[in-house]
Amino acid sequence: MEITTKNFIEKLPEIKATIKEADFFAIDSEFTGISDKNIYPFDSPEDVYLKTTNSISDYIIIQIGLCAFRLQDDKILCKTFNFYIFPGSRINVFTSQGESLKFLAENGFDFNKLFRYGLNYVNTADEEKLRLDLKEKQKYRANLVNSKEENSNEHQIQLANHIPIPEEEQELINGIRERIDNFIKSDEKQFIVENCNGFQRKLVYQILENYQNEISHSSYTDENNKSKGILIEHKRSAEDEQVLEEERIKKEEEQLLLTIGFSLVLQDLSKSKKLIIGHNMLLDVLYLIKQFFKPLPSNYEEFKKFLHKTFPYLIDTKYFCTTHLQLKPQFNSTVLQHIFRTVSKAPFNLPKIESESMEYEYSTDQPKEHEAGYDAYLTGICFLSLMDFIKVNVKEIKQTSKMNKIVNRIFLGRVNDVNYIDISNKEPSVKKDHVFYITFPETWKQSDIFEKFKKYGFIHITWINSWSAFIMLHNRLNALAVIKTIGHTPGFTITTFEQYKQKQQNYRYVSDKRIFTSPNNSKSIIGVSKPIESSPGSKCGTGSSNREETSETHKKEESQKRSSSFIASSKTNNDDEAECTNNKKTKLFHDNDNW
Amino acid sequence: MEITTKNFIEKLPEIKATIKEADFFAIDSEFTGISDKNIYPFDSPEDVYLKTTNSISDYIIIQIGLCAFRLQDDKILCKTFNFYIFPGSRINVFTSQGESLKFLAENGFDFNKLFRYGLNYVNTADEEKLRLDLKEKQKYRANLVNSKEENSNEHQIQLANHIPIPEEEQELINGIRERIDNFIKSDEKQFIVENCNGFQRKLVYQILENYQNEISHSSYTDENNKSKGILIEHKRSAEDEQVLEEERIKKEEEQLLLTIGFSLVLQDLSKSKKLIIGHNMLLDVLYLIKQFFKPLPSNYEEFKKFLHKTFPYLIDTKYFCTTHLQLKPQFNSTVLQHIFRTVSKAPFNLPKIESESMEYEYSTDQPKEHEAGYDAYLTGICFLSLMDFIKVNVKEIKQTSKMNKIVNRIFLGRVNDVNYIDISNKEPSVKKDHVFYITFPETWKQSDIFEKFKKYGFIHITWINSWSAFIMLHNRLNALAVIKTIGHTPGFTITTFEQYKQKQQNYRYVSDKRIFTSPNNSKSIIGVSKPIESSPGSKCGTGSSNREETSETHKKEESQKRSSSFIASSKTNNDDEAECTNNKKTKLFHDNDNW
Repeated sequence: MEITTKNFIEKLPEIKATIKEADFFAIDSEFTGISDKNIYPFDSPEDVYLKTTNSISDYIIIQIGLCAFRLQDDKILCKTFNFYIFPGSRINVFTSQGESLKFLAENGFDFNKLFRYGLNYVNTADEEKLRLDLKEKQKYRANLVNSKEENSNEHQIQLANHIPIPEEEQELINGIRERIDNFIKSDEKQFIVENCNGFQRKLVYQILENYQNEISHSSYTDENNKSKGILIEHKRSAEDEQVLEEERIKKEEEQLLLTIGFSLVLQDLSKSKKLIIGHNMLLDVLYLIKQFFKPLPSNYEEFKKFLHKTFPYLIDTKYFCTTHLQLKPQFNSTVLQHIFRTVSKAPFNLPKIESESMEYEYSTDQPKEHEAGYDAYLTGICFLSLMDFIKVNVKEIKQTSKMNKIVNRIFLGRVNDVNYIDISNKEPSVKKDHVFYITFPETWKQSDIFEKFKKYGFIHITWINSWSAFIMLHNRLNALAVIKTIGHTPGFTITTFEQYKQKQQNYRYVSDKRIFTSPNNSKSIIGVSKPIESSPGSKCGTGSSNREETSETHKKEESQKRSSSFIASSKTNNDDEAECTNNKKTKLFHDNDNW
Repeated sequence: MEITTKNFIEKLPEIKATIKEADFFAIDSEFTGISDKNIYPFDSPEDVYLKTTNSISDYIIIQIGLCAFRLQDDKILCKTFNFYIFPGSRINVFTSQGESLKFLAENGFDFNKLFRYGLNYVNTADEEKLRLDLKEKQKYRANLVNSKEENSNEHQIQLANHIPIPEEEQELINGIRERIDNFIKSDEKQFIVENCNGFQRKLVYQILENYQNEISHSSYTDENNKSKGILIEHKRSAEDEQVLEEERIKKEEEQLLLTIGFSLVLQDLSKSKKLIIGHNMLLDVLYLIKQFFKPLPSNYEEFKKFLHKTFPYLIDTKYFCTTHLQLKPQFNSTVLQHIFRTVSKAPFNLPKIESESMEYEYSTDQPKEHEAGYDAYLTGICFLSLMDFIKVNVKEIKQTSKMNKIVNRIFLGRVNDVNYIDISNKEPSVKKDHVFYITFPETWKQSDIFEKFKKYGFIHITWINSWSAFIMLHNRLNALAVIKTIGHTPGFTITTFEQYKQKQQNYRYVSDKRIFTSPNNSKSIIGVSKPIESSPGSKCGTGSSNREETSETHKKEESQKRSSSFIASSKTNNDDEAECTNNKKTKLFHDNDNW
């Protein structure tokens, strides 16, 4: 079911009940942009986290699918909510990536609905303030009513501050005065003062003060809450004022719920501490925390701690398929849709799932790929099928060693060593002594580098620019020999990765610029960090995603050298549309594939 | 007529012809966000330019209306194009303001159309590169064909770089080999290798090299230019290859036009050097230059020079109505729709305008406010009516002194002295000796300040924070006396604005943060610069725009002091939905009103 501002208030109790009753959830989200991070195959989980948080800019989540599953003895029930999320106020400034919005629009995403009826949200600190403010505002009004007749002092001060009416506005103001005088004597119920500019409105409010015993006034708004003028009515009785005030409070409470919006749902989800399934969920969790809870910590361990506290029980189906010994051999590709295709036939069994009502119905017969609700639903189905295959009951995950190394691990693409973030434990640290930093003459091609390293077996080249690169040996045993035995070639230098890092005393990733700085060569390295990210070379030639191929076709030929030379002589896999999962060595250059 | 990628190629010749034939144009644009600048009433045009350029963030234009008018002896003809503009590639990262997108969506803007079919654009430098790249790419292909048979050296190198086929891919690759062998012997016209991940595609391309005398292959894309697989066909003859190459070149040339996109239109518009009418057009020209030509210069004079070179003949209808002696008394409000309402009745005459065909038809009977095309059309109509009223022929503007001080002046809202940018001349510089910087006890209210200044006549207060403000005297003649005669009050200090600026040695506006820094009190001033902009106080109480009232209602009570105390005892006008135009003194706090 779609949830927007149009039905949020009405459906909120049901959403809350659903979260309460569910056994587990599957989620998915759609963003205004995706991280364009420059991940190296030898990056650690912490490196990936820092690079990603620095590169997700101010992109936001605009749709969240939440699929709640209930496991009963004889059947599995599910309800899917598809939330449109959009902060429609002036202070909400966010970034978008042209390609992402285009991609979503081409896949049927309704942006008109999003911008008109998307749910608001607030972070934890702002929510508290909002609640407090409303309480004070209502208290202030209550006090005002009580003290109105007793104290006319304030009124005197107001009168003293009055703006003299300029000559050119006299006619307008006199007209309005006359209109009010006639209204007071008449049986008319109300009238509206319209078409005034701000200054004129101010003058009108001034004269209204002189009529405060005869008329009541309020600002008149249209259905979009836009001010259209000043509504003038006969003076209301105390009882009428009371009824009006109660209505007003009810409206304000509803408005508060709408302002806190989707955050109310996430809070319940977090408090439930129940299992949440996602597919390739790194960006999902990063955006969730950043947008709805608090800024992403610059400290990796702090991030893990906060994530664990917020969502203490996660499973990433991409990591599950890629890693679990029984599942790994079954999947050529772990793109969500490909997983579904695989689990739809033997040796897998698709679970039989009943939607709780027609409103919540998605069907894999009518795929709505890239709609968050549908993708969440698909993720849940795949997860159930995987669990069925490895013969583990979802309710007994915590009791079985089979899932030990799957729970709370979030998949990391493109990296070679530790390809997950372990939310509840420290990841193993892996030495990088098989990685080298080299510089060479600009005339060198890929084949020159391969020639230079041929005695050490397969290598992977990460080009920095036309005269430097990182080299990663696939056979770590050869690493020790390299520096000693590689021999001298004019214009060629080599250092270990550790030495390289030490040299870069100021080596750091600067906010969302992904810039290396060093006192010695900051300029030249800054100059080239961009091409690595945006050129097809960094995507390993043929492996750029379909979307990239489209937008970057014109660049392909221009960077032939970079593009071709990036293909290492080893088996590499730069799969963003699909990944090889058979061999750890090949897990290079995965992209965020559930797009 | 709507112009999107769907009809751009087809309509481009007609657009170009229309620009060539027109006598003048009216334009309007819609943005993803508007400047949230903190303009002071005593700011100079240069101050406003710098503050605005620093605060427009990376907002972009997403729709441009271009209405071309032809003046004939007996009638006025017009054609309106409504261009959807959207950069759909990965590298295009831009910002949006939630409120702006919501506002446009509520006014019927079709974002789904925008994101799917919006026109691309490139700046001048990129266009040159694109053209060069395509030429080289085509030349490269031509050379390749010529050298194919002569030189198999490259092929040998390619083979040497081949990746060994891993065991787990053998079955797939053998299957594809077999499929190709059968295809070669068959009458089938083609087949497609699908569902491969990136690594697998790479392996497939490798084996295809062995079949290069028997088959031709190309990447197979869907209607959205998305790769779907590898299309295999029987080896094409040289003639077929030639035909195919010609088709390919034609497609590439079309693609190039689509990539340069809307920039092609703007270039023609600029080259035409014809009169362009806009309404409140500061943001329009700033965004136009920034987005389609080059970054906005940090030097004000450089900006004016470039703007004058690019669009040498501009009239801003807002400035026209606000300033022209015959028009000024006629308008209470210079919001575009209000101007139209005024010129729709006596003493004005609406021009009779014929659309050149149904396709270009807008009608004021069916208003489409906030659609750029319609607003451009409306601007053109208002302009013609204004010209009729002051009895100047549009073709003779340059010859009449009546328009001397109107042409090439762009309206500036909210400022008190020079309320325009003069594109072709230096603006007069105005001394600020009637402006003072004061500090005072935090307990002070507005009335304390008024009391302190009462002997100097009307003042305007620009609050900086709860203990400091700028005071502007409306009667400049009183300025000299202030420092000498204001007298001592504990906790109160006063300096002239000039002294204040000198003290702030590091006084500067920092990029889009609008922050003052000073070595002495940077912290406290930074801390308060935000509330001034976003609190209703800065909008002068009742004068915040309708849109603001909605989103900021909850803040109103909390900042009562700030809000009320901001209302100077003088006549102020903080008009964003409409402006007072009768008195220069009142031109404070105008907002971008043609929204």
